[in-house]
Amino acid sequence: MGNIAAEKNGVVASSASANKDLINGKILITKNGNLSSNGETNTDDQSTEDHHHDYAIAPSISAEIIDKKEHCNQLDHPEIEGWFAEHCSIWPGQAHFLKSSSYGKVFVLDGALQLTERDECAYQEIITHLPLCSISNPKKILLIGGGDGGILREISRHSSVEQIDICEIDTMLINVYKEFFPDIAVGYEDSRVTLHVRDGTAFLKSVESGTYDAIIVDAFDPIRPEHELFESSFFELVAKALRPGGVMCIQAESLWFQPFNIQNLVSKCHHIFKGSVNYAWTIVPSYPSGVIGFMLCTTEGSFVDFKHPVNPIDPNRISGVAKGPLKFYDSEVHSAAFCLPAFAKKAVDTKVVGQ
Amino acid sequence: MGNIAAEKNGVVASSASANKDLINGKILITKNGNLSSNGETNTDDQSTEDHHHDYAIAPSISAEIIDKKEHCNQLDHPEIEGWFAEHCSIWPGQAHFLKSSSYGKVFVLDGALQLTERDECAYQEIITHLPLCSISNPKKILLIGGGDGGILREISRHSSVEQIDICEIDTMLINVYKEFFPDIAVGYEDSRVTLHVRDGTAFLKSVESGTYDAIIVDAFDPIRPEHELFESSFFELVAKALRPGGVMCIQAESLWFQPFNIQNLVSKCHHIFKGSVNYAWTIVPSYPSGVIGFMLCTTEGSFVDFKHPVNPIDPNRISGVAKGPLKFYDSEVHSAAFCLPAFAKKAVDTKVVGQ
Repeated sequence: MGNIAAEKNGVVASSASANKDLINGKILITKNGNLSSNGETNTDDQSTEDHHHDYAIAPSISAEIIDKKEHCNQLDHPEIEGWFAEHCSIWPGQAHFLKSSSYGKVFVLDGALQLTERDECAYQEIITHLPLCSISNPKKILLIGGGDGGILREISRHSSVEQIDICEIDTMLINVYKEFFPDIAVGYEDSRVTLHVRDGTAFLKSVESGTYDAIIVDAFDPIRPEHELFESSFFELVAKALRPGGVMCIQAESLWFQPFNIQNLVSKCHHIFKGSVNYAWTIVPSYPSGVIGFMLCTTEGSFVDFKHPVNPIDPNRISGVAKGPLKFYDSEVHSAAFCLPAFAKKAVDTKVVGQ
Repeated sequence: MGNIAAEKNGVVASSASANKDLINGKILITKNGNLSSNGETNTDDQSTEDHHHDYAIAPSISAEIIDKKEHCNQLDHPEIEGWFAEHCSIWPGQAHFLKSSSYGKVFVLDGALQLTERDECAYQEIITHLPLCSISNPKKILLIGGGDGGILREISRHSSVEQIDICEIDTMLINVYKEFFPDIAVGYEDSRVTLHVRDGTAFLKSVESGTYDAIIVDAFDPIRPEHELFESSFFELVAKALRPGGVMCIQAESLWFQPFNIQNLVSKCHHIFKGSVNYAWTIVPSYPSGVIGFMLCTTEGSFVDFKHPVNPIDPNRISGVAKGPLKFYDSEVHSAAFCLPAFAKKAVDTKVVGQ
């Protein structure tokens, strides 16, 4: 059974959901296999074809649908009607049960919660404005993954930006967001946006060195020192695609999950990017532990003091294609995002480099 | 059926647990009724007797045990073996499932999660050091509730403190913590501590005006504008017990729960306390939404700039009865605790007063 997107009780479930009860409503179903993960390193350069664009309305869904995401286990218990359940071995000992009533629409992909309308602002604004407000005058931006369009919406607020490339292999995902989450997919309406339906690694290989001022990677899973992206050439390609002093931002593990191996992560990033490296975090209540981290890395060049943004954004101005002002981010929130609890600070301070 | 404390798989459940599976181990059972809530305004001045001190070992527990906490509803689904479940109507649309393996021991009271060994540092350190580091030279401290001893442990780090009164009606709770959580109950070992087994309101009525430099209220539920404590004389009594410019800290609602009625809360607090009022928050992953708020209020007197602590604490020094240095708090974390996401800041900035 392939990709499925359906909405019931405000929960949009794509592919196999942990809660079948949620996908008995209107169902969009593609011809092909699993949805691709955003930002994953698919080394198959042939995967650049748009193989997810076909879908049709199907009235129901069979019991064949199971969670195929290997590292995510379902809780061994009956379903709870009207609730979405998420339990993953990468965050042991914690399970999420959400009812969409208080979170607006909820998007679920392969059984993993992607975002909710209530708190998507926190993730999208922080992953975008931490890098873009940390450097002066960003002009060329690459987004890898982020097919929902929310990060595009946030990039769109920056008037200095001239070019926004998004590399997203999964057009099914884009279509689902355009249908069910128009306030998020609105990012595609910015005329500076060019969509490249390609695998991220393949796209990076085709990019001229030093092209981008900033690259945002909206990875499916938070990176950790043992993340598969470190095993591949992905980060080297990102670093090569950045101009000297250009910045990358990618979601990283929650400081609450053990082991919080930030030293190793910072070391690996500095080894690859050579410039400034720092770790930030924000609160997102619908994510496990309620917080999510970010790694920010610059290539060798001017010193970048991530904690003190040099390119502030007016919190009251509506700009670009966004329909309202910022909900979560401002310069004070930016600085606070780099302020870690004592236990985490001890781990980072010995390794934060380039500052 | 009365108070029960039992440990199984690292979860200590007291009174009726939402997950009966957790309370089939060793069971402590009292003679009397429900455990009292910390910091609640029991207007019955007769409730000052120590009526929870008797307990005995019981081998098992009957099915009569149900969740009697009126505003907490159980999820209508079968239990999940080995997991603790919490679902409360005061945080609609979100349920917590925790397995103790990754959180250390977990304490559950009347079906509501109270703390875990993994993250108790965040709550205890923030609720203590935000007020005590915001004023100079605190000497006399009152803690209402907080029977676990963790806040006492944190107060103990302050060498200026000469007197620590704790008013906790529930000695059963204290005994449970001393047995199962010695690193938290260690706070009672400070020789400056005097335990008053009394109802908080009754105790406050007996206190001379202007006695305390700081009062910390470890309420069972976070305060909201409609909280029952505002209907009573409780806060007036707290304000009266503080010296001019003295400070109160109490846990307040999460900024993620709607309606986040912080304006109303700040107004009510300022009306009662007359001095500086501000709202802070911290992350606690085992609490619903992953964050919890705090209201800080001073009585009329010297201006208190909560955001910039005047009485910093050395993060590396082990002092008082605590067995290790601070895990979570430092001066930077203090300032960041008052930094709110844009949507919440807009609500607070128009109402933060006295600054």
